[in-house]
Amino acid sequence: MEYRKEIDTIIDQISFKGKFNINLDNYDHILIGGMGGSGIAGFLFSEIYSKKPVIVLNTYTCPDFVSNKTLVIAISYSGNTEETISCATEAKKKGATVLSITSGGKLSEISDQAVIIPSGYQPRSSLGFLLMPIINTIAPELRNHIDEIKGNITDIRNNENHIISISRKIFESGKVPYFISWSPTSSVAYRCKTQFNENAKMLANAGYLSEINHNELVPMGMNHDMDPFIYIAFKNSYSVRNERRLEITKKLSSRDITIIELKGKSIFSQIMYGIYFGDILSYHVALLRKVEPRDVSIIEKLKLELSS
Amino acid sequence: MEYRKEIDTIIDQISFKGKFNINLDNYDHILIGGMGGSGIAGFLFSEIYSKKPVIVLNTYTCPDFVSNKTLVIAISYSGNTEETISCATEAKKKGATVLSITSGGKLSEISDQAVIIPSGYQPRSSLGFLLMPIINTIAPELRNHIDEIKGNITDIRNNENHIISISRKIFESGKVPYFISWSPTSSVAYRCKTQFNENAKMLANAGYLSEINHNELVPMGMNHDMDPFIYIAFKNSYSVRNERRLEITKKLSSRDITIIELKGKSIFSQIMYGIYFGDILSYHVALLRKVEPRDVSIIEKLKLELSS
Repeated sequence: MEYRKEIDTIIDQISFKGKFNINLDNYDHILIGGMGGSGIAGFLFSEIYSKKPVIVLNTYTCPDFVSNKTLVIAISYSGNTEETISCATEAKKKGATVLSITSGGKLSEISDQAVIIPSGYQPRSSLGFLLMPIINTIAPELRNHIDEIKGNITDIRNNENHIISISRKIFESGKVPYFISWSPTSSVAYRCKTQFNENAKMLANAGYLSEINHNELVPMGMNHDMDPFIYIAFKNSYSVRNERRLEITKKLSSRDITIIELKGKSIFSQIMYGIYFGDILSYHVALLRKVEPRDVSIIEKLKLELSS
Repeated sequence: MEYRKEIDTIIDQISFKGKFNINLDNYDHILIGGMGGSGIAGFLFSEIYSKKPVIVLNTYTCPDFVSNKTLVIAISYSGNTEETISCATEAKKKGATVLSITSGGKLSEISDQAVIIPSGYQPRSSLGFLLMPIINTIAPELRNHIDEIKGNITDIRNNENHIISISRKIFESGKVPYFISWSPTSSVAYRCKTQFNENAKMLANAGYLSEINHNELVPMGMNHDMDPFIYIAFKNSYSVRNERRLEITKKLSSRDITIIELKGKSIFSQIMYGIYFGDILSYHVALLRKVEPRDVSIIEKLKLELSS
């Protein structure tokens, strides 16, 4: 499938109905393990659901507290990510229930239940498949926002010139994009950073308010001729104080910060708006840079070297 | 107190005996809230203790799951950090036990118990005071490592030329330092980034293996004449796979990555080694850049604008 079309399948993916059969009352906390394009689903979910502690892991090991009161959701598109398999295996030994979301591979074999998702995608363009089984199982009420999200994605597509103009600004700056957001949409900034890495083959950075006001404001506030960053902020409607902080940061740092307003009537909607926006933005920058957005062969090279 | 001497008081601070009087069995999970130089203690503690879920918060709000089974530790050196006060106030309303570590301010008034620490320091140079009450209360067995940590800090001081040579390399590169580490010492890379921001007044970045191998390796692997970063990795002894990943990353990216080996017989020791090393490194870079390491007046300016 052409990669742009692959990105756009998100609109169908968020209708995905795969789910697990568990009784949530049996668990004290939820641990979501996954790396890179697979792991982002956990970060995103931890921002839209907090009725139980959700701990996101991007590590080989799992914490000492894991027990039969722990629900583990292990996400690996390939099903062969070594960190996720290692973490899930440890959790299983400690008595946790291990659910997996994967298109195949070893992970499904070591888990108690698996939702098998379609193969043939890049992990980073299968976010809907990776995310919806978590939502369908743990917070199905969030499905009420799906229609609105689809409408918002359609709006973004109908106004793509706006994204193209931002992509030109980033490209022509020759700088490293620095994406800013704040809770509960920090995952949007992080996702956008990783999409610029993989799609546009660009170094990129992500930072979250108000934390960066407590340290990074110091160098931002200096007259940095050498500032290598171009700043882009995703503004949600859930923190008046952080909106104000963004304004003051702009003023005190004298930096041109491009602000993208996240549209949507819920946290879930605003996050999905930002993620689709950022995905398309990174795609357009890839085109301007004349790089193949789908290609991440160096990651395969690393995996090959790791296994030798 | 001269700022270098202030940094060096860490060796006395880690003997600090302040503690809370609680029964840990009454709580299902621990939530540590704090920002910037105060918040780092929570990140650090979450890497050395995992017998119960430790959730680190750098936000204005606290999650829905907070209840009377939640132990909240709110850290704010000044005691007046608005995010931490807001988060602690919400937690209190939800029935949580709120402990605070502070030198004064409003925070102590709204908490169930407070450990009052000495005033007159910069928050970032009071890490021992901010951290030890958590350890003394929740994981006192970690105090067994204090003597070793003091010995390691003395070793670093006796070999400061090594740090000075790295500081020159960073300064002369004219680049933005990018600090890399991995669990369970990711907090070292993050701390070092923030210390470069505040002490050396430099933009800086932090990234964690193996996560960055799943995205950032792509642009790192390209022939980036324009790469604005100089890479410094803190290597712990707790993950053979990530050590291997660091080597392969170096090779595939053709980047010169300066490696600092974290010394110590425990995770706690290795983290404290790295933190002191990074603190002194940032101090020397500040001297080379002829900036005043203690000064962070722009953060005060922002707080003033926020309160108007």
